[in-house]
Amino acid sequence: MKMIENAVGRLIPEEIEGRKLRPFAGVYADKGGGRKAAPPIPAASLYRNKLLKSLDEAIDACEIKDGMTISFHHHLRDGDYVVNMVMERLAARGLRDLVLAPSALFPCHEPLVNLIEKGVIDHIEGSMNGPVGRACSLGKMKHVSILRSHGGRYRAIQDGDLHIDVAFIAAPCADSHGNANGVYGKSACGPLGFALADSLYADKVVVVTDNLVPFPCYPWSIEGGNVDYVVQVDSIGDPQRIVSGTTQITRSPTRLLIAKYAAQLVYESGLMHEEPFSFQAGAGGISLAFIQYLAEYMEKDGIVAAFARGGSTRFLVDMLRRGLTKYILDGQSFDLVGVESLRDDPRHIETNPFVSYNYHTKGCFASMVSVSVLGATEVDLNFNVNVNTHSDGWLLHGIGGFTDAADAQFTIITAPLVRSRLPIIVDEVTTVTAPGEMIDAVVTERGIAINPRRQDILDRLRRTDLPIVPIEKLYNIAHDLSGEPEKPEFTDRIVALIEFRDGTVIDVVRQLVPKS
Amino acid sequence: MKMIENAVGRLIPEEIEGRKLRPFAGVYADKGGGRKAAPPIPAASLYRNKLLKSLDEAIDACEIKDGMTISFHHHLRDGDYVVNMVMERLAARGLRDLVLAPSALFPCHEPLVNLIEKGVIDHIEGSMNGPVGRACSLGKMKHVSILRSHGGRYRAIQDGDLHIDVAFIAAPCADSHGNANGVYGKSACGPLGFALADSLYADKVVVVTDNLVPFPCYPWSIEGGNVDYVVQVDSIGDPQRIVSGTTQITRSPTRLLIAKYAAQLVYESGLMHEEPFSFQAGAGGISLAFIQYLAEYMEKDGIVAAFARGGSTRFLVDMLRRGLTKYILDGQSFDLVGVESLRDDPRHIETNPFVSYNYHTKGCFASMVSVSVLGATEVDLNFNVNVNTHSDGWLLHGIGGFTDAADAQFTIITAPLVRSRLPIIVDEVTTVTAPGEMIDAVVTERGIAINPRRQDILDRLRRTDLPIVPIEKLYNIAHDLSGEPEKPEFTDRIVALIEFRDGTVIDVVRQLVPKS
Repeated sequence: MKMIENAVGRLIPEEIEGRKLRPFAGVYADKGGGRKAAPPIPAASLYRNKLLKSLDEAIDACEIKDGMTISFHHHLRDGDYVVNMVMERLAARGLRDLVLAPSALFPCHEPLVNLIEKGVIDHIEGSMNGPVGRACSLGKMKHVSILRSHGGRYRAIQDGDLHIDVAFIAAPCADSHGNANGVYGKSACGPLGFALADSLYADKVVVVTDNLVPFPCYPWSIEGGNVDYVVQVDSIGDPQRIVSGTTQITRSPTRLLIAKYAAQLVYESGLMHEEPFSFQAGAGGISLAFIQYLAEYMEKDGIVAAFARGGSTRFLVDMLRRGLTKYILDGQSFDLVGVESLRDDPRHIETNPFVSYNYHTKGCFASMVSVSVLGATEVDLNFNVNVNTHSDGWLLHGIGGFTDAADAQFTIITAPLVRSRLPIIVDEVTTVTAPGEMIDAVVTERGIAINPRRQDILDRLRRTDLPIVPIEKLYNIAHDLSGEPEKPEFTDRIVALIEFRDGTVIDVVRQLVPKS
Repeated sequence: MKMIENAVGRLIPEEIEGRKLRPFAGVYADKGGGRKAAPPIPAASLYRNKLLKSLDEAIDACEIKDGMTISFHHHLRDGDYVVNMVMERLAARGLRDLVLAPSALFPCHEPLVNLIEKGVIDHIEGSMNGPVGRACSLGKMKHVSILRSHGGRYRAIQDGDLHIDVAFIAAPCADSHGNANGVYGKSACGPLGFALADSLYADKVVVVTDNLVPFPCYPWSIEGGNVDYVVQVDSIGDPQRIVSGTTQITRSPTRLLIAKYAAQLVYESGLMHEEPFSFQAGAGGISLAFIQYLAEYMEKDGIVAAFARGGSTRFLVDMLRRGLTKYILDGQSFDLVGVESLRDDPRHIETNPFVSYNYHTKGCFASMVSVSVLGATEVDLNFNVNVNTHSDGWLLHGIGGFTDAADAQFTIITAPLVRSRLPIIVDEVTTVTAPGEMIDAVVTERGIAINPRRQDILDRLRRTDLPIVPIEKLYNIAHDLSGEPEKPEFTDRIVALIEFRDGTVIDVVRQLVPKS
């Protein structure tokens, strides 16, 4: 296997299992080129009655065969029933070697491990979280898996790198034409944008709903004109686990301090005062606390954000209602308040990875965000970030929107310096998810490291009382606290590729030798 | 030139000017096949600043060359400035042989005739109305023009039959990213759906606006991710002629009677009582009166439409507000009340020809409409309809949405029996726009002809006092009133093709020998 060193110094095979790889060459090195995928041309007269009685009827109608690629979205998160339901039916038919292409998987998808072991699933193109990632680390996939960011997944489908034979789209609300959204019904989840590319480019599209409404189902986040079949089922998910009743801010003093530092950094660096100001933070405990602190600063200085990017939560909705942001541009809603606001407030706007994250567009929103606050499992001395594997080598997380959101004008990593007795700052990350080039600051409870590339920000912070330190100092503190962590042991076999948002390969994940 | 007889008996050349033609084979004969157009893959990093200072800068940036295809939408109707502005700049540069691809043209576009005569414009693919149609009839285009319905135009662009090099999209509201809508600003026109295909498939897309707003411009009927450049100009149109202040119902007793008959027909045929009921009518005087009469019947019997298809007007909006329809699915707004309702009422939904009219989809709304009420210039004894040419042979109208809307479950043509001393019912239409197979009834002030294919409806009307008569009878009455009209004289030269919504050719238009 001929290896090529990419722009972050990782060795990438020139080709793997017949797939030619392009090594990562820098965040903006890719200039596009080529042509998008060209889906088959249908005829409306063949789609007069799309309503089928069962998943089995849909599987028959789609003529699913061994080796096909089957896709799903993850808007139902850990409450999703549809992936397991469909895959079980496919397994029951003796289908094999399927490629699973979910936008993400969750602990609830643990039953898939069994299907991987049985050979029903050959490998996965899509985020892997928890048990399925663990199976991948153990080398249980027959062929190499591919992890992509949300924007990278859209790009791959759009560009024809990831051809989907059949997409199953779980829909909290749908009509018999296939128009579907995520804002109405007992399984309401918010946006359905992660399924947009699937609906546009898959050969066959099946909408699976537990809330069939009369035409027209509106908003039509998924358009019936792209849908082959509609199947009604009793339940597409567990509402309790689709969205949380109320998202909670961290109570950990350490994490609160990190959030406070991050907000203060945005304030004192002057970023908040540069118009138009906008921000993105997730739904994790630190992020939610960050949003609260940020809101306080904004209110104090009369700052109104042009927009805030969701994942939406009640905290973001509260800012919208208080006039601290003009809009929420929402890719997924994490709690009920987020779902209801998306449904009812015209300033709370549903987005999808085409408009927000896809690098192979004529521009997307990611680069317009002033400040993005993201988590990580590891950061190295070059500011490279790992969000996929842990320091012990296990592949446990998808990329999510990380590499896309990190295209913001200022990207902050927030993380406690030590987690599970492992230092967050390392000399070399186990896996490079995003290049240091995209990361502007790392905020920990013991200090804040600014990427030396951002001398402009360092200059502005000269008079701050924030604990600005070189990243090497954070590294030393962390290692003093945790001791030198044991390095994981890998075999030579590559089990997964980490794709950058432009389709290049930024790193590979190797099979883990588990500790006995 | 080898000619083939198509399914409505018209002779269609097998090939013209190197273009292979498919003869019309029946409304649902086309089963799709092949692949959609595959646009070039862009890279977001090349689109950080799209805002240009002038149309000339945009023309430079798009590298427009002789022979290219330039497209426009017609949402600004007879108030549009953008087509003339852009074409004048292209002419000033000495460009020649351009293909003009507007979704429609209006009397305000008369200056184009001069550009056709000068060879700046080679021919037109798109609807031609008024002066430009007249120029086409006189053989002034260098090559054969193509008329398509709104849905047919989307299809042609989507399928790659109509490749657009540069689309100029007039936008009443836009941000610097290129997100655009038609509901805000001094030039507000309502939906922007006729430009959707252009934005998705053209190589280069230029948004031209007189109302640049901060990001995010929402709704984004046109998505910035598909836009190359944004140009701000003083004015994109004359608000007075973009939408009328108030649309007016006809006061002609003849036309009111036709409208009344049409509504009574919908009522007495039982179509109104079949759930889900829906309807589409235009903004012409008869259509507006029809809507009023229909609303009375609906109110009387407590009927609520599942949806009404726009062109929206204050009359349709009034029905929405009175609860007589659950939704308006709007393709274009004809008056200010329509625009404001689209902007403010979440039940008034913007559509585009993909969702509503495109036959090459997995279903579109057209076939879900219960009753469609449309006008015509001629109807023949086989119920074939002409909306393009007049009986004197002049090409004066585009297809509009005719062939798409005629896919409704019951399609009614309303027309006065005689117009400008010419009978509407003829033995053979001058031009076949839509096959009689799609037409269920012709309603005139002197009688109503039901297509014998709809024996089911005839059966239901046995006890009606409506003047149901054979179409031959209408023909005789009309000819008794008008006398035998003089037939137009044509040369052999084909100047335009009438494309059916599936891309087949249903008829040709020949060069007219003008009366001296």
